[in-house]
Formats: sequence, structure tokens, C-alpha cells
Amino acid sequence: MRPNKIKQMWRENRCVTMGWLSLSNGFTAEVMARQGFDALVVDMQHGLTDMANLWPMLQAISQTDTAPVVRVAWNDPAAIMKALDLGAYGILVPLINTAEDAAKAVAACRYPPVGMRSSGPVRAIHYGGADYVAKANDEIVVMGMVETKEGLKNLDAICATPGLDAIYIGPSDLAFALDMTPRPDNPDPKHMATCDQIRDTAHKHGKKACMHCASAAFAAGAVKRGFDLVMLTSDLASMVAGVRRQLDDLKAATGG
Amino acid sequence: MRPNKIKQMWRENRCVTMGWLSLSNGFTAEVMARQGFDALVVDMQHGLTDMANLWPMLQAISQTDTAPVVRVAWNDPAAIMKALDLGAYGILVPLINTAEDAAKAVAACRYPPVGMRSSGPVRAIHYGGADYVAKANDEIVVMGMVETKEGLKNLDAICATPGLDAIYIGPSDLAFALDMTPRPDNPDPKHMATCDQIRDTAHKHGKKACMHCASAAFAAGAVKRGFDLVMLTSDLASMVAGVRRQLDDLKAATGG
Amino acid sequence: MRPNKIKQMWRENRCVTMGWLSLSNGFTAEVMARQGFDALVVDMQHGLTDMANLWPMLQAISQTDTAPVVRVAWNDPAAIMKALDLGAYGILVPLINTAEDAAKAVAACRYPPVGMRSSGPVRAIHYGGADYVAKANDEIVVMGMVETKEGLKNLDAICATPGLDAIYIGPSDLAFALDMTPRPDNPDPKHMATCDQIRDTAHKHGKKACMHCASAAFAAGAVKRGFDLVMLTSDLASMVAGVRRQLDDLKAATGG
Amino acid sequence: MRPNKIKQMWRENRCVTMGWLSLSNGFTAEVMARQGFDALVVDMQHGLTDMANLWPMLQAISQTDTAPVVRVAWNDPAAIMKALDLGAYGILVPLINTAEDAAKAVAACRYPPVGMRSSGPVRAIHYGGADYVAKANDEIVVMGMVETKEGLKNLDAICATPGLDAIYIGPSDLAFALDMTPRPDNPDPKHMATCDQIRDTAHKHGKKACMHCASAAFAAGAVKRGFDLVMLTSDLASMVAGVRRQLDDLKAATGG
Amino acid sequence: MRPNKIKQMWRENRCVTMGWLSLSNGFTAEVMARQGFDALVVDMQHGLTDMANLWPMLQAISQTDTAPVVRVAWNDPAAIMKALDLGAYGILVPLINTAEDAAKAVAACRYPPVGMRSSGPVRAIHYGGADYVAKANDEIVVMGMVETKEGLKNLDAICATPGLDAIYIGPSDLAFALDMTPRPDNPDPKHMATCDQIRDTAHKHGKKACMHCASAAFAAGAVKRGFDLVMLTSDLASMVAGVRRQLDDLKAATGG
Amino acid sequence: MRPNKIKQMWRENRCVTMGWLSLSNGFTAEVMARQGFDALVVDMQHGLTDMANLWPMLQAISQTDTAPVVRVAWNDPAAIMKALDLGAYGILVPLINTAEDAAKAVAACRYPPVGMRSSGPVRAIHYGGADYVAKANDEIVVMGMVETKEGLKNLDAICATPGLDAIYIGPSDLAFALDMTPRPDNPDPKHMATCDQIRDTAHKHGKKACMHCASAAFAAGAVKRGFDLVMLTSDLASMVAGVRRQLDDLKAATGG
Repeated sequence: MRPNKIKQMWRENRCVTMGWLSLSNGFTAEVMARQGFDALVVDMQHGLTDMANLWPMLQAISQTDTAPVVRVAWNDPAAIMKALDLGAYGILVPLINTAEDAAKAVAACRYPPVGMRSSGPVRAIHYGGADYVAKANDEIVVMGMVETKEGLKNLDAICATPGLDAIYIGPSDLAFALDMTPRPDNPDPKHMATCDQIRDTAHKHGKKACMHCASAAFAAGAVKRGFDLVMLTSDLASMVAGVRRQLDDLKAATGG
Repeated sequence: MRPNKIKQMWRENRCVTMGWLSLSNGFTAEVMARQGFDALVVDMQHGLTDMANLWPMLQAISQTDTAPVVRVAWNDPAAIMKALDLGAYGILVPLINTAEDAAKAVAACRYPPVGMRSSGPVRAIHYGGADYVAKANDEIVVMGMVETKEGLKNLDAICATPGLDAIYIGPSDLAFALDMTPRPDNPDPKHMATCDQIRDTAHKHGKKACMHCASAAFAAGAVKRGFDLVMLTSDLASMVAGVRRQLDDLKAATGG
Repeated sequence: MRPNKIKQMWRENRCVTMGWLSLSNGFTAEVMARQGFDALVVDMQHGLTDMANLWPMLQAISQTDTAPVVRVAWNDPAAIMKALDLGAYGILVPLINTAEDAAKAVAACRYPPVGMRSSGPVRAIHYGGADYVAKANDEIVVMGMVETKEGLKNLDAICATPGLDAIYIGPSDLAFALDMTPRPDNPDPKHMATCDQIRDTAHKHGKKACMHCASAAFAAGAVKRGFDLVMLTSDLASMVAGVRRQLDDLKAATGG
Repeated sequence: MRPNKIKQMWRENRCVTMGWLSLSNGFTAEVMARQGFDALVVDMQHGLTDMANLWPMLQAISQTDTAPVVRVAWNDPAAIMKALDLGAYGILVPLINTAEDAAKAVAACRYPPVGMRSSGPVRAIHYGGADYVAKANDEIVVMGMVETKEGLKNLDAICATPGLDAIYIGPSDLAFALDMTPRPDNPDPKHMATCDQIRDTAHKHGKKACMHCASAAFAAGAVKRGFDLVMLTSDLASMVAGVRRQLDDLKAATGG
Repeated sequence: MRPNKIKQMWRENRCVTMGWLSLSNGFTAEVMARQGFDALVVDMQHGLTDMANLWPMLQAISQTDTAPVVRVAWNDPAAIMKALDLGAYGILVPLINTAEDAAKAVAACRYPPVGMRSSGPVRAIHYGGADYVAKANDEIVVMGMVETKEGLKNLDAICATPGLDAIYIGPSDLAFALDMTPRPDNPDPKHMATCDQIRDTAHKHGKKACMHCASAAFAAGAVKRGFDLVMLTSDLASMVAGVRRQLDDLKAATGG
Repeated sequence: MRPNKIKQMWRENRCVTMGWLSLSNGFTAEVMARQGFDALVVDMQHGLTDMANLWPMLQAISQTDTAPVVRVAWNDPAAIMKALDLGAYGILVPLINTAEDAAKAVAACRYPPVGMRSSGPVRAIHYGGADYVAKANDEIVVMGMVETKEGLKNLDAICATPGLDAIYIGPSDLAFALDMTPRPDNPDPKHMATCDQIRDTAHKHGKKACMHCASAAFAAGAVKRGFDLVMLTSDLASMVAGVRRQLDDLKAATGG
């Protein structure tokens, strides 16, 4: 089976650099994949991709060795199983609030007898290789997002879930959980302390800890603080930033 | 008829800031349109949009007052007329090499008796208004690209073409025409002198002159050199620039 | 934040005229939006639009000030939250049978601490404006459909749900609930009395009452009977009616 | 080979009732096909369908015995041949100005030695049957539009073209050719006389004459005036008419 | 209402030959439908079709009298009801583990008072006919898949579910349930005995039994063993088999 | 620049095995690419792909080292240049009838000063590499089809065209040119002799000769007869062959 770059890097204790695909477009996905991210997430929760448009995104990424991850919109076994059948090598599940939620997410990612995944890897077997069904349970990464009051309360139990590979921090919803207004790269001490607490709890249980950032500066900080994966920037945010910079510079230069 | 922002600005002798859509995606088109460009070009020559995907791009732009322009892939009356029917307010025609080419492009943009445009503005009448057919000949902008040896040779005759609104400089092909290697924001003195000569010839004939740039600095220079429209940046180039910056900064910050 | 025309009209106690989009096509959506409806519903339950095709429908409507509403296929928080992220300004939820159902629908439409909506308004922030997250809880309309025996039984409790803006009557399923065969613009006295009872209960709790009609005559009656919103006709029904009329008239005129 | 309903009816000297598909949507095409038209035209000139979206339109129509016709955007052999490969049973070519134009259109519709059509009926052989290549030359209908000053001048020579089946009148462009403003169902005596002249010239050469109408009343007149095919109404026009009627009636009824 | 070929054949005690559509493409669906299958399944669980792409698949099949069946991804009433609205004549529900699961699947397929299906057959009424709502409860086929340990345990209760038409065996997941590795056309005696036991239990309760095969040889065996429907092959598997054969033969012939 | 496998193999005098993509579907394209063809052609002439759908096909192939070739619908510079911009590494041009036709096709594939290709390799530079513009003239393969009476007459002059890489035989149209009925793998002695004559003339001018086959047996013969590339089978033909075999075998086995 084609190896999963995230798993490989984690085995070597290296920090994974991940990009984000809010757009649903195979060409931007390809261009993003060719920039050198270790992994890319297709966001089906808040991004524009839906299940009908997922496989072309995964094909676009599959031109490179970047690991294709999918954030599903909900902890829904049918969606998780289909994303895997289409070739996702990692699944990111939002709103994991309890250990039961975490166990349910893991089960959807694993074939029996470990889990309840149904057999039928329609594209995954072509992408992953003929031994896909035999090896997928070991190669697929499952990440759960802890981002609500309830999730924080059950953090330890969630992190103890067998088969869960990592905890992923969604800082905007986490801000809500901490009674704050969401903002990118949140510097609030309480927010940062909570992130560090999540990281420590994950590590205590042998899980990886992943941080969703919005700039290189903040991501570099997360690397130094011991996170195992940093999400750096998205296709959409990068496009807007690039355009705004040119428009503002032109206005400044021409006194517009 | 809904007014054409390019025409309005040109009547006031203001310089138009235009953006470029290489991607074929209605959402990136919308986001680009909301950044404040005066006009946006959907590129059907070298970009990813084809006729089948054009109208959603125009709809996306039409949420704002940004003028929707289409670069057709070829000086092809059928394509020009369909782009107009779908709601383009400006047509950019590549590879105008002779006055006949220019006249052919103009004719496809004008209803009889001025030109040969066929009647059937399927979306344009909904976007432009009930008086579209009566007023379109006056409101639609036609721009021809001069970018080959042959085009340079016939520059004066091309600029003299009745009904042609502007000359648009394609600097990459122009570099080929000048026996140079294409590069963005070409600083070569001969290349710049040729651009200025095109601008002057256009102005001599009462036509506008438009410059395709790749940065605010170069575009500001073009504004100062008297161009009437500057193309500033594209969706794709901005995305790549934004992503590269974050990836390079992260690598630098983490010693990666 | 861009205002919600439905909310504006309801604040002035005006009756909203709404159209229905059964087709999944951005161009018909645009044409419908340009006819002058106050609001348009994209129907994801019985219509042809699915999540993958929703945002182009919303873009099409967004060229006008018509309020974009989405009927989700089910009371599913993931679907509701994604429709909102894509720019819906109203959510219509079918099969609200209990107060718990109603509360669940409301929660999916409201950011914490009011509800459980996850943060990530990917298109909504571009359409709605930079203050979208701060103001969305006040501007988004949530409508629940009461249309089953169980819903009728729990009508009062449903109408009492905090945050629910309106009750929407689905007359076909309501006919089933009343042991009748569904028919458009149902004139059955028991059916009409039930509709009036729903309206009164809604009003009693300070909620709006909305009636799904199939003709101007019936809709005018609903306006007079005190409904706050009338759904008038759909793209598909109008097309079929228009075509049938021409075909029948031609047959009659030619003795065909 | 599956028979062509247009050819069948013409052999019996019956007048064909045709509908128009301006929209590019397989579901509206299906609904239109199920209303009872003898033929339906997918309009690739002024309508929203492009080659990439043509075959689903033809599939939709192919659920019924309605004959599928395609109006190509231009007298372009590649486009004509591909529309036929995809299963069109009739080709409508705009802007036939000379006998050479007509002969070129016919040649693209006929396999050698009669014409120059290239072999490769990718869908046509599945739709038409295993004997498609042997019989297509006899079953496919070719219609040319005469609608310009030049076309009128060459009318007789155009009508004399071997293999051309019919002349189709495009009344809007014809109005331009007669120095009039286009309007639907043009009652101007000169316009009507020109249409009758085209019909007579076509009939003189054993060709059929087809009239593009916009209402049952006008179409009934055309039937009585001896036209062999009447285009009655389009998906888009019917939808708009149906919606406007409901909105206007509601406004009238509620004093809105 | 247009009759359901599966129901017709079962009334005559004939065995139905079914094909499988893993691809999501209207043209391959049409070609498959024209090969002579009695029924075709669009697979939304492990195949590439999602709800957004379902209706063109159904249209493609609807050019023939092949019965269109949909395998939904999950026992989800919203998905089942929408597939039916779009024109499915049979529903195949995976992972039926209990009698409650089976009853839930049946209820989603039946209008009240029998079930809970919501009224709105947007395409089904055009495909099925004007009497669709009145007759659909009798004509639509519901098949449940028994394929897990839990399903096997509850086999008898599942088969006793009123309104369920048939039990469909998914041999890969069934292999997991029997602690085996999935393989096509599983010849393991325990696997075959389990299939026969499912068939017998279904028959005991007056239900049909359906077998998922991967070759004519195995399917012929299933016919002889008394199954009422055999799934023979898929679009994708056939394509791969056809290509591999040619490539292998060429290599052998050229000593490659 | 990423190397072109066809060029590499031809430099080593090896025969290229090519597959054909009649379907327009990224998933079937991927599966085909993973079977081991040296090159795959996306057919835009008789196949279902149009320009709007081309780039996802090329992306699908680009997951492997299979060389992506595009058959354009016509000898149209705009289409050829866009196919190259999207990442085609080979262009196959139908209906090359004269040396001028051949020179026109070559010119569209080469940047100045060799040809007239316009600069703008929107995807090609991401797929091919940063030195794409500098090296594309040497790496892109241009193949012309000789398949008409006129083409046969001008065969020697066509083969002498500088920059043309290969002659490709289209046997169906060639049959028309030889006054025969098209059939796959045409065994007619005159047809075979003509193919051999084309091969010899190509070789005489240092060009490669390519044969379009429909089976391994015929392709193996072509390899032995000295052709430099054999087209073996298509996605569509393989699917139909695979399905027919299973259906026929089942019928035979069950006496159906």
C-alpha cells in the first residue's frame, strides 16, 4: 500500500506542515499540492467541497506525495467511509465532544473486526494499491477535533480512545467554548493555555496534537511549542491576501 | 441599460484597475469581484474557463459593479457573440495582426447595421436591462491585443479601426515578437519603448491603451506612463504568491 | 451586515412574497430573482439542488436584494450550518414534529452561546460583510415546517420555541396528516381551518406564519387571511404551465 | 436505425411542432420533452448549452420519441459532426448566406462519399442503432437559417442546395436584414412577406420551410400559411411568462 | 404509473439480472442500460455517484425499460426519499442490522398512512406518470442488505418486516461478519451456506433473495440455487477486465 | 521539464502502446492510466470530452507517467494551444489533407520563432516544470492524421513537413477514402497496403507511423509490421466488451 506521509513523518517525530483547501476546484488543489505541503485537507465542513466533488480534489492531490486528508462535515460514518473509499488517507472529524464520539469516528475508519467500515474501496484500491484492504487499518490517520465546552470537559477520555491518532484544535470554535470571540492565531493567554493543555493531554495518551494556524509566525510558534502538525494557510486566504496586497500597494503608489 | 464601469471611467479619463481570472470557479470570481477591481477579465485563451463555464463566472462578478470582460481564445465571431449574449460587457481579442482582424472583432460586437452580431442576448438582457439590444452597441467595450511582429507592423492601421475601443498589450507574446524571452513586468528598454509606442499610436487615433502587469509597482509605473487601464494581478498568481510566502517564512522560522 | 429583506419586511408587518426553486440551475435562479420576489427558496428536500450545487444558486440570487432561503432536506445540523456558511439568509426545516426538533433547528442556526453553529462562514462573510459573525444570530431567519400528525399535536410547544422565527405550512404533507390526498391550493375546509389554526398559534407566540401556495388567487387569499409570507409559484411549475398553455392553444387553433 | 420523427411527419406532409431549449439543464429538457413536442432544439448559438453540456440534453430528450435537434453556434464542421456523434437527429445552422455555406453545412452532416463527415458516432450508434453509419445520411435533417441581407440575396441558390432539407427563418436577425428592430412574432407586412417569399422559394426547390414563433397564435397563423415546422415557445420564455402572470395577478389581487 | 420491471418479473417468478454502476457518468449509464439488464443499481455507498449527480444517472437509464435502483449510502430517510423523488424505482439499503432498521427503510419508501415519505416527487411524477403518488407505494421495491454479525443474528426478524420486498446479500461485508477476508464470488462453504440460509429465511417470509456476484459463472450458480435476483457485473469491473485482457494479450503476442 | 514518455521510447526505437479515452470522466481516465499504457489519448473529436472538461482528464492521467495526448476536434490553433496550456504532451490532429494543414498544426504547437504558439502555459508549467516554455518545443509531440483521399494524394508532402513527429492512421475514415465501409481492424488487403504505404512514407521522411487498432491481435500485427505506436483499445469499447461477455455467458449458462 502506498505509504501515508503523515504516518511516516510522525514515526520519525517530525512536524507535519499541512495546507487547507476551502475552494472546491481541482486545479487550485493541484497547484497547492505542488507547493510542498506534507498534507492537504479538503474541507467539507466549512469549505465549498461536497461529497460529489471530493474525488477530483483527491485526484489532484494524488499527482504528488502530499497526503490527502478530508475534514468531514459531521461525525457521520457514511461520509467518513465514502471519503476513505475515494482515497482519503486521513480523516478529520469536527465536534468530538465525548469518548463515544471519538470511538464512533475511529470505528468508521477501520475495517472489521477493529471497526465497522464497509468494504468497497472504489478509488482507494487504485490509488493505494492491491493490498489496500489488508493494510488500510494501519495506514489511515484519524484525527478528532476538540473545540467545545463539552469536548474540553471530556478531553482526557477522548484522548484515551484506542485507535484515535491525533487531536486537532479548531481555534475559532474553541474561542466560543472559552466565551471569546473567534479570531485567527488567537494570542489570548487562556486560549493558548487551553491549546497547550490539549497538546499535553494528547501526548500523555500517546496521541499527536495538531494546531490550526493562519500565518507562518504563529505556526512556527506552534512547532516550537511541540505540536506535531501545523495547518499553515488556505488556498482562499492566500489568494485574498495576495490580491489585497497588490491592490493596496497600487493605491498607495498612485495615490488612488 | 446597466452602465459599463470601464466606459464610465474612460469618459472621465480615469485609469481602470483590472484583475485577471485564470481559474474557472464562480467562488473565486466572486471573491475577486468583492476586492474592488473596476473590471475583471475571464480568460478563455490561456485560463481554465471554457464557454461551457463562462456564464457562472459572469454571474459571480455581476453581484458587484465590477465590469465583466472576457478574453476569447481566438478572433472567432461565434465565441465573441456568445460571450456577449451571456453578459460580457467587454471583449478582449488576442492576436490582432491586421486592420481586417480588428474590424472583424468589432463587427462581432455590434448589432447591424454597424456590425454582424446576431440577436439573442439570453442572459445579457436580464443583466443589462430591457433596452439592451438598443444600447449595447454603445456600451460594450472591444479591446484588441497587439502582440506579434505582424501586429506591430500594422499597428497604425489597427489603431485606426472604427469602433475599436482600446489596444491591449500582451507582454509575453510581445516579447516573442521582439525576439526576447517572455518575463513578467518586462523592464527591457526595447520592450518598454514598444509598449509606449503602442500607447502613443492608440492615443493618436483616439483609442485607449491598456497594459498587462504582474505587480503593483509595475502597474503604478504604467499608470504614470499614461496607460488607461492596468491589469494588476490574477487569482492564481495571487494564491501562489500568498502560499509561497507563508511556506518560505515557516521554513525560515523553523530552520526547516 | 447586509440586511435580510425578510426580517426588514416583517419588522414593518409586511407580507413577504416568496418564489420556489425546484430546478438546480444558476441561470433560472437568476432570472427568477430578477422577477421581483422578496425571497426565493432553494429546495434541497424535494427539488434538484444538492449541497454540491447550492452555492451557485445563492450567488445567482445574490445579484439582487432578494433574500436567499434554503430548505434543507432534513433537520440536520451539518446541512443547516453549511447552507448558512454558503450564504443562506433563511433556513426552512421540514418535518418539525416536536419542540425538541424546533430547538435543534434553531441551535444549528445560531453561534454560541445561543446555539451550536460552528464558526467558518466561507462565503457568508463575503456576501454578508465583515461583521457577519457578530450579527448573524440576529439576521438569519429560521422557519420550521409543521406538517405531520405529530407536529400538529405538538403545535403549541413548537411555536413556543425561543429563537424560531416562523412556522411554514407544507400543505401536501399536511393533507396526509389530515388523512387527505395532497392537492395544490387545498380548499378543503378542514385543511384550511388547520392552516388558520397554525397561523393563530404561531401569532400567539409572536411567530410569523407562512403559507405555501400554487397560484396568485390562493396566495392572495392567504395574504388576506393574515399570513406573513406566501410562497407563490416555482420555476418548474411556471415553465410547465407556460408551455402547456402554448401547446394547448396551438392545438385548439389548428384543430390538431 | 431509430426513425427521425421530423422526417416521418414531413413524409406525411404534416407540420412539425418544435420547442426551444435556451436553458442548459437536463431536467428542464426532460420535462419539455414530456410535454408532447415533435422536436426540440438545443440552442448552442444564443442558448446556454455548449458542446461540453450537449449530450446530457440529448439523453434527456431521448427518453421520449421527440426528435433531438441542435442549433450549432456557427457553420463549423467540427461542431456539426460532434453534435451528430452525440446523437442529434437534426442540425440547424445559423447565418447561411450563400450556396457555398449551405453546401458546407450539408457536407458536414453526411458521410462520404456524399459529404465529409468523419466516422465515430460515439453515442449516436447506441441511440440510433447498429445500422447508424449505413443509414444516417438518409435520416439526419439539415436546416439552414436564412436571416441576413446576403442570405436573402442568395435565397434561390441556397434553396437549390442538394441535400439541404429545410430553410429555417430566424425572425430577429431577419428584422435587422430588413432594417427593422427585432421583435417577437413580427407582424410587419414587409417582414411577413419576406417570410412567405422564403417559404415559397424553399417549396419551389422541394425544401421544407420552418418558422420561429413566440406564441400559439402566431404559430397557428404560420401553420395556416403553409409552413412545415413551427417553433412554438422556449423553456425560458415559458418560465418567465408563467412567473410574471402569477406575480402580476397577486399584485393586482392584493393591491400591492 | 409506468410499471417496475423488477416487480413484473417477480410476479412471474423470474430471476432479475441486475448490473452495477460504480461510475458516476450518464453516458456509461446509458450504454449499460442498452446492454439488456433488467435493472441497474446506482451505487451511492461505495460508488462515485452522490446525490448531486443522481438524477442524470436515472435519466440515462430511463431511456430504456431497465428498472433504476439506487443503493443509498446509509439508512437515511432524507436520502431515500430524495432518491425516490428523483425517479428511483428500487431502493437498496446497506447495513440492515435489526428489524427496526428494516422498518425504518420501508417507512421512508412509503407515503402515509403506510410510511412517512414526504410528498414532492419532482422528477418521479414526470417519469412515473400523473398517478405516481397514488400508486408508488405498490410499485417501489425496497431491498435491505443483511451483511453484519448483528444482521445475521436478527435475520428472521428482519425478514418478517412488513413492506420489505427483498433481502440483498453483500458478500464482502458478509465475509467480515463471518471472520473471513472479502473476496469476489466467495466459494467458502460457510459463506455459501450463510447465503443459502439468508435466501431460505427470506423465502419463508415471502421475501425475495438477491445475490451480488462478480461473474456469469457464479451468477448462474445463484440462479440455480434459487435466488430471485443476481447482480452480475459493474461498469468499472467490466472496463478493467476488458482492458487488462487486451494489454495482457498484446504483451504475450509481442513478447513485451 | 518532465520528460515525454513517447519521445523517450521513440528515441530508443521502442513501440508505444496507447489507450483511448472516449469517455469524459476523470475516474475512468485514472483507472485507465493505472493499467500500464505508455500514452493515453483524450478524444475531443468523436469522444465525449470537450475543452471545458479536458483538464481534469489530464490531471487524472498525470498521477502516473503515462503521456497525456489530446486529439483535437479540428486543426484549430486556438484549441491546440489551449490543450497544450492545460498540459497535453502530445497533440493528434485529424483530417490533415495537405502540407499546409500539417505546417499549421505544427506551428500551433511551437513557441516563436519556430511557430506561433501564444505564451501562457497555465497548468503546463505546474505539470511540466519551471523550464517548460524553454523546452516545450522539443518535448511536445505533434501527430497528424492522414485519412482522406486528399490526404493520401498529398502524403509525401505531408510527411515532409518540418516539425511533424508522426503520421497517425485513422482506419475508419481511411476506409471511406478507399471507398470501403469502415470496420474495426480492417483486414482488407488494399486497406492494409495503404497503411503500410503511409508507414513507409513516414519513415522515409524520418517520421514515426502510428496505427489505430481495436484488438491485441491486430495491434501485435502492427507492431510486427513496423509501426512505432499502436492504439490498442478504449475505455468504452473495453467496458462494452466486458459487459457483453458476462451477459452472454450468463444467458448461455442459464439457458436464458
